[in-house]
Amino acid sequence: MGKRFGILTSGGDCPGLNAVIRGAVLKGETVYGHTFVGFRDGWRGLVYGDVMELDRSTVRGLSNQGGTILGTSRFGPYTEPDGGPENIKNVLADLDLAGVIAIGGDGTATAANRLFNDGINIVGVPKTIDNDIDATDYTFGFNTAVEIATEAIDRLRTTGNSHRRCMVLEVMGRHAGWIALHSGIAGGAHAILIPEQPESLNQICAWVTSVKNRGRAPMVVVAEGFTLPDMKEAHAVKGLDGFNRPRLGGIGEVLAPLIEDRTGIETRATVLGHIQRGGVPSAWDRVLATRMGMAVADLVADSAWGHLVALHGTEIARITFDEALGKLKQVPQDQYQEARVIFG
Amino acid sequence: MGKRFGILTSGGDCPGLNAVIRGAVLKGETVYGHTFVGFRDGWRGLVYGDVMELDRSTVRGLSNQGGTILGTSRFGPYTEPDGGPENIKNVLADLDLAGVIAIGGDGTATAANRLFNDGINIVGVPKTIDNDIDATDYTFGFNTAVEIATEAIDRLRTTGNSHRRCMVLEVMGRHAGWIALHSGIAGGAHAILIPEQPESLNQICAWVTSVKNRGRAPMVVVAEGFTLPDMKEAHAVKGLDGFNRPRLGGIGEVLAPLIEDRTGIETRATVLGHIQRGGVPSAWDRVLATRMGMAVADLVADSAWGHLVALHGTEIARITFDEALGKLKQVPQDQYQEARVIFG
Amino acid sequence: MGKRFGILTSGGDCPGLNAVIRGAVLKGETVYGHTFVGFRDGWRGLVYGDVMELDRSTVRGLSNQGGTILGTSRFGPYTEPDGGPENIKNVLADLDLAGVIAIGGDGTATAANRLFNDGINIVGVPKTIDNDIDATDYTFGFNTAVEIATEAIDRLRTTGNSHRRCMVLEVMGRHAGWIALHSGIAGGAHAILIPEQPESLNQICAWVTSVKNRGRAPMVVVAEGFTLPDMKEAHAVKGLDGFNRPRLGGIGEVLAPLIEDRTGIETRATVLGHIQRGGVPSAWDRVLATRMGMAVADLVADSAWGHLVALHGTEIARITFDEALGKLKQVPQDQYQEARVIFG
Amino acid sequence: MGKRFGILTSGGDCPGLNAVIRGAVLKGETVYGHTFVGFRDGWRGLVYGDVMELDRSTVRGLSNQGGTILGTSRFGPYTEPDGGPENIKNVLADLDLAGVIAIGGDGTATAANRLFNDGINIVGVPKTIDNDIDATDYTFGFNTAVEIATEAIDRLRTTGNSHRRCMVLEVMGRHAGWIALHSGIAGGAHAILIPEQPESLNQICAWVTSVKNRGRAPMVVVAEGFTLPDMKEAHAVKGLDGFNRPRLGGIGEVLAPLIEDRTGIETRATVLGHIQRGGVPSAWDRVLATRMGMAVADLVADSAWGHLVALHGTEIARITFDEALGKLKQVPQDQYQEARVIFG
Repeated sequence: MGKRFGILTSGGDCPGLNAVIRGAVLKGETVYGHTFVGFRDGWRGLVYGDVMELDRSTVRGLSNQGGTILGTSRFGPYTEPDGGPENIKNVLADLDLAGVIAIGGDGTATAANRLFNDGINIVGVPKTIDNDIDATDYTFGFNTAVEIATEAIDRLRTTGNSHRRCMVLEVMGRHAGWIALHSGIAGGAHAILIPEQPESLNQICAWVTSVKNRGRAPMVVVAEGFTLPDMKEAHAVKGLDGFNRPRLGGIGEVLAPLIEDRTGIETRATVLGHIQRGGVPSAWDRVLATRMGMAVADLVADSAWGHLVALHGTEIARITFDEALGKLKQVPQDQYQEARVIFG
Repeated sequence: MGKRFGILTSGGDCPGLNAVIRGAVLKGETVYGHTFVGFRDGWRGLVYGDVMELDRSTVRGLSNQGGTILGTSRFGPYTEPDGGPENIKNVLADLDLAGVIAIGGDGTATAANRLFNDGINIVGVPKTIDNDIDATDYTFGFNTAVEIATEAIDRLRTTGNSHRRCMVLEVMGRHAGWIALHSGIAGGAHAILIPEQPESLNQICAWVTSVKNRGRAPMVVVAEGFTLPDMKEAHAVKGLDGFNRPRLGGIGEVLAPLIEDRTGIETRATVLGHIQRGGVPSAWDRVLATRMGMAVADLVADSAWGHLVALHGTEIARITFDEALGKLKQVPQDQYQEARVIFG
Repeated sequence: MGKRFGILTSGGDCPGLNAVIRGAVLKGETVYGHTFVGFRDGWRGLVYGDVMELDRSTVRGLSNQGGTILGTSRFGPYTEPDGGPENIKNVLADLDLAGVIAIGGDGTATAANRLFNDGINIVGVPKTIDNDIDATDYTFGFNTAVEIATEAIDRLRTTGNSHRRCMVLEVMGRHAGWIALHSGIAGGAHAILIPEQPESLNQICAWVTSVKNRGRAPMVVVAEGFTLPDMKEAHAVKGLDGFNRPRLGGIGEVLAPLIEDRTGIETRATVLGHIQRGGVPSAWDRVLATRMGMAVADLVADSAWGHLVALHGTEIARITFDEALGKLKQVPQDQYQEARVIFG
Repeated sequence: MGKRFGILTSGGDCPGLNAVIRGAVLKGETVYGHTFVGFRDGWRGLVYGDVMELDRSTVRGLSNQGGTILGTSRFGPYTEPDGGPENIKNVLADLDLAGVIAIGGDGTATAANRLFNDGINIVGVPKTIDNDIDATDYTFGFNTAVEIATEAIDRLRTTGNSHRRCMVLEVMGRHAGWIALHSGIAGGAHAILIPEQPESLNQICAWVTSVKNRGRAPMVVVAEGFTLPDMKEAHAVKGLDGFNRPRLGGIGEVLAPLIEDRTGIETRATVLGHIQRGGVPSAWDRVLATRMGMAVADLVADSAWGHLVALHGTEIARITFDEALGKLKQVPQDQYQEARVIFG
């Protein structure tokens, strides 16, 4: 009789999570005769043994569904009082589970690796909408986010042109500017601002003014993790003192009045926010996620514990947690400089 | 030889403006032998005689273009020093223009009516993305905004479900909640908050909690013009004192922490903003705008000065500025109560 | 205790069917304390008493789902051996159902009316993607079809322009050309061909040639029900003799080689087909369908048997089957002539 | 003073062509001080010296425009009487052009290589919507086609489910089934039929019947180049004899009645056709095309005549025409077998 495995999704939701689950279950059942359960709400479900059955009929039609049917949370397997490897081993034994598939970001992989070193059979699927994991060429969810951000740029452009305004769009990207870079190139932005690359307010305003002087409406795309080299510049502007509620004002909302104040060009900010991460995944993300799900079914069939799946070129590869962990993939200087060619 | 008319677009941009221009020019040229110019940047172009030629080739392919090729502004024909009817009459005479087509909202119609009473040949096309003009069943642009807001709800829902969060979406609607009402019904929102209808924070939290208790992720759609009956409630909440930068915090961003604080349910806000008004118009808006453009070509051919076009049922009607002006169309109580049936 | 009613969907599927079901169940439960079952696969489910329970949880999240969760068929309540009013009365009594809500097109309404005259408590919701029911300003599903057809025109246009080809798009519309008319206006088609209006091949080719001579790529939208006045014209063209498999060649595929042959302009046909009727409904259709569903819950609460709901202007009205039946709403001459202004 | 180069687009249009042109012009102007002209309608423009100026303002806003502003054709530089290298050298000399950028498929590259061997300075950008060029991981246009095909599957699925029908979707792919494979995986198709892999009608019907027996509506995606191993099977079916008009009946339309006839399951075909290749490119295609355009500006700056740009992993590489030519990239057996795991 086939073995039985558990699947969990952890951290922020991402288009493609359900396609990973579906791919793993369909391949695991069909090819290896395995059976699967899903842990509810990430590591919480594993720690408390809260599971749902996952079979062919549970996962039918899931490839085009956003979010995750398993639920997710930011619960950690070591940080919560009831967690820890011994408890988790007991849960797995009680549920007759031969191993765990953890779908999540860098934090999830770190926790999974620690569990692996503590003797838990665990494998991983990398997940980040920001595409900032160095071990894989692309993560699922990123493509959907870029498509949505690009459509937003297309929409904002017509408003900018009609009002001869500067439009600022803030997109996701805490530590890496991939979404800003790709959507900005796709949408023909006049400035792309990313965490990897400080640009002074002077430089940004020079681009904006130059575009405006050529008779166009400047379009600025900024990743949420971008910071002005001297944020005191921001605070020197009237009305922005005491800015101490970051939830109510992303960098886009900080930049827009600064640009308007310095250039005299009417400027409006839009913060795309959660819209980037929800809803129907793009076909690209569905394919990538399905392939990763099928590949992780191979990992557990091979008892290749301590490994992640990854995309290398057009192939799905497997790498160890150690190879993957903590290596942030940022936009390289030369790629950014290449994009700057079409700025301003 | 055919007469010559000028067209202007004024106020906020709106999907369908270009289709109106195209419809007017195509019908005016083809049926009446008229010719057209466009005034640049709204009333400013009229006051300063800044025009561009508009003919069949200028307007080709315009029906699916967002924004307005003429540009727009909030310049008023009476408020600016160089404005006023005498100057405008001179501009029209100099340019050999027999009349003006003004496409804009209530402010534009008010100004147009005053010009009409001061002897200027002028007709109008009503424009507001908020759909709050009583004289017409629908305005173009509204449908596109509702489609975009509904897609946003669809996207946010998957995130809400995955994280078991309450999601708050702020949509446009300063004085009337039509976008919130329609997108909320379409997206299956659990609470729809509109300017016409005060709802207490207690009531909102009761809906949110009830939805959560049924195992679902609450979805709240709020129009930008909604206010809590007692906004002091907002200020009493820790961390929101001194809220004095309205640009950086719409009602959605005010509500989310209030809901989270009171219900203990994690809550996230998204402000849709300018994305609602830009980009490719929906087919519905293109058809309505084209029909209104063609109908306004009839108005000028009939010298029906002082009239607006409007949609009544499935027909395009004509009404006087006086009939149209200042009559805000708000969501009636019974329609709102009907929608509330499916809340909570 | 509340009464119990059954719902069925009959005929071709249509975006919005699920939203009608959801609207009826939510309002019926909440306001009237009614309960509901769904008959599976249209009249077949009614005749054989094949039902599923429909409650708040069954219909959750349905407003944005295409198709119908009840299934549909072309089974008729009188034409099948086990049908007929006596049998149906027995089924309803056995299931303790106080009445039936039939969602369907003209054929469904005809059958429903006959059942009503035979003593069955039945009400209706009009459904046709073609929008050709005179009793209502619009039917749900039509708007989605128009949006999809318009997007197809937008896409085909770029191909046509690049290759300097004539593109022919066949859309739905057996007896009425509403989809062709609206999508053609929205997409800026150069010729719109509808069942209501014969146009000779000569006239069509004259339009196509005129557009080409102005340096543009001709775009022709044709409703499936359009026929050339003299179809012998078609058969006279080399290679088209013996055309006897209508399933493999819609009018679009017949027209394209005729146009190419006569004008010498390379011409390509696309038949949009089933794509027009499936998938996520537009927000407009979801709102209309939800409102109709809620209104039909009122109908059964009022025991207003023999009535349909309908859209009149912005209001939902109720009309008798007799008022509604057999009145085809076709595109009026003046509307078609208006659209022709922008042809050629 | 900067050199001057000509750009042409040849063969079928493809989403991303304009982004290539824009990327090349922007980088060439900004970084190298080059200037550019576009040849109209592919090789025809080169042979007859029919050009348009291409500068920063010509290419503004082009990244999200489908088709090609240069026009395209199937004209060959050697096959037409006025063609040939001597004539082309004269044209280039007359226009003071230092080289040619040819954007096109395998046929274009073959012609370009021959011109290169005949002494013309020429470089290339690979283009095929089918993604079947071995030298590059992906070609632009392919992603857009997959997204459109996937959306069509999503739409057809709801109709299939409602009517309990089998739906057949024919997508592009003459010699390789990449579009079918990716859209089929993304859309959760139950059978994917590609040119690389013969499947008997028996096998196809076995999949369809198995899906139907599990209570689902079978979804079949078929590439246009798929053939049944024994096409006599098709002709043996009643009503399909004498099938001799391939233009009016793609493989999808041939398959549907065969499946219906043999399984007794109602089956409907949709042929997606030109819709797949037109319209707004996906963000992915815009980024890839922009990068390829910028890279080809580097090629001409380096006088790297006889080279193509290509995508290898996440990097843009350069390869010789000889390395690229005639190497068809088909779906490998193992990838197809992997996809088959989730069939049936």
